[in-house]
Amino acid sequence: MRIIRYSLDGRTGRGVLVGDVVHELPEDATGPGPVAGRLADVTLLSPCDPRVIVCAGSNYAGQIAEKGRPWPEQPALFLKAPNAVVGPEAEVVRPAEVRRLEYEGELAVVIGRTARQVPAERAADFVLGYTCANDVTAHDWRADGQWIRAKSADTFCPLGPWIETDVGDPSALRVTTRLGSRVVQKGSTSEMVFGIGELLAFVTRWITLAPGDVLLTGSPAGVGELVPGDVVEVEISGIGTLRNTVTRRAQ
Amino acid sequence: MRIIRYSLDGRTGRGVLVGDVVHELPEDATGPGPVAGRLADVTLLSPCDPRVIVCAGSNYAGQIAEKGRPWPEQPALFLKAPNAVVGPEAEVVRPAEVRRLEYEGELAVVIGRTARQVPAERAADFVLGYTCANDVTAHDWRADGQWIRAKSADTFCPLGPWIETDVGDPSALRVTTRLGSRVVQKGSTSEMVFGIGELLAFVTRWITLAPGDVLLTGSPAGVGELVPGDVVEVEISGIGTLRNTVTRRAQ
Repeated sequence: MRIIRYSLDGRTGRGVLVGDVVHELPEDATGPGPVAGRLADVTLLSPCDPRVIVCAGSNYAGQIAEKGRPWPEQPALFLKAPNAVVGPEAEVVRPAEVRRLEYEGELAVVIGRTARQVPAERAADFVLGYTCANDVTAHDWRADGQWIRAKSADTFCPLGPWIETDVGDPSALRVTTRLGSRVVQKGSTSEMVFGIGELLAFVTRWITLAPGDVLLTGSPAGVGELVPGDVVEVEISGIGTLRNTVTRRAQ
Repeated sequence: MRIIRYSLDGRTGRGVLVGDVVHELPEDATGPGPVAGRLADVTLLSPCDPRVIVCAGSNYAGQIAEKGRPWPEQPALFLKAPNAVVGPEAEVVRPAEVRRLEYEGELAVVIGRTARQVPAERAADFVLGYTCANDVTAHDWRADGQWIRAKSADTFCPLGPWIETDVGDPSALRVTTRLGSRVVQKGSTSEMVFGIGELLAFVTRWITLAPGDVLLTGSPAGVGELVPGDVVEVEISGIGTLRNTVTRRAQ
């Protein structure tokens, strides 16, 4: 099932996409309700509205090798703040002070029910589904001790296009990032150092996640620069493609 | 005006405290509504429900001198995540893996309207009011590259007891932290390196804050250890006293 959030005629709704038909999805419903319109009629928003966005850094073997980083002994976590979230087709804005902005295509895990001290082997019970994320990063600002500006500036967390609840095996998905037609990242979630269950167990041992919260699982090798005018796509097999354009703020 | 959030008979409400009488405060109201009950009848919750909690580290001259840290050239920011928020009288829980937990008494600024690229001199227009915060920190986990576990474990962000909208001059408030009857921090917001206006201007240049979001402004000298059984109070002149007890998780 593909769960979306959308705006239509100034109203924001939660829906299910069946082919190109948008059905309403009331907050407590488990399946599609009445037809709201066609996909072409609505504006897709970020498919969830997280309060907590926990991210794993250096979690792909390929990226660790590429950057010459030490093999992690435990998940390297950081936060992105909710102000950073935007939806599919939204603009990613490079701040005036930033010289180098980077894409990081990632699998995002969307939490379905309150997750506190979840054992790794039960993690799937707490997952609503999966979506694509771009962990946009201001490279210049990684020098700040904590990465708040580097990772959480407005528009730095595109999510979408929808939450896919049935991806099959989430540890065998292809993650592809493109700039225009050029493939710049090509990985598989099988390369993760810490799998989704291990990450959720580690995080929720101390940090309770609520429905709609998001776990970003790290990016494959090939992270690189975004410049104004770029069209960046993160495609994940079994889910779909998240597409955004890059602009800049002049001052 | 003292704005609270409370629970009463299983219902959560927003209210105004007049003496010891709780008046309802509907979401769009600007003043007290009907009487809901007495202060003694309700359980005070965190007075706001922030999505973004931005914190300034090393922002008091006394703390910088005490720790021998370099004078900051710009605000040193980090995030706390919303799962960490608890209210007055709530328990602060030391995780089983943590040997040293610390208090940090701080003035918290509560945002009143959407704050984006706010000039320092107009910052006050975007502030709803002020409350007390304890920026509870797991000292052991500061060694994690990013401080997510150190700063954002569940219960690590007590806020309260209320939002005071009329504090007079927020740059001349006394911040006192006590363990039981022993005073362990005694500072003044006049010691801040970056004042509230400068902090809000710096943050909102890139990070949009929404109503209810919170800025923690740093802690005076005297940060120290919390152990299970401690009763910790953060008192700020013109606001009130935030009181919490410390417990531990055994495993």
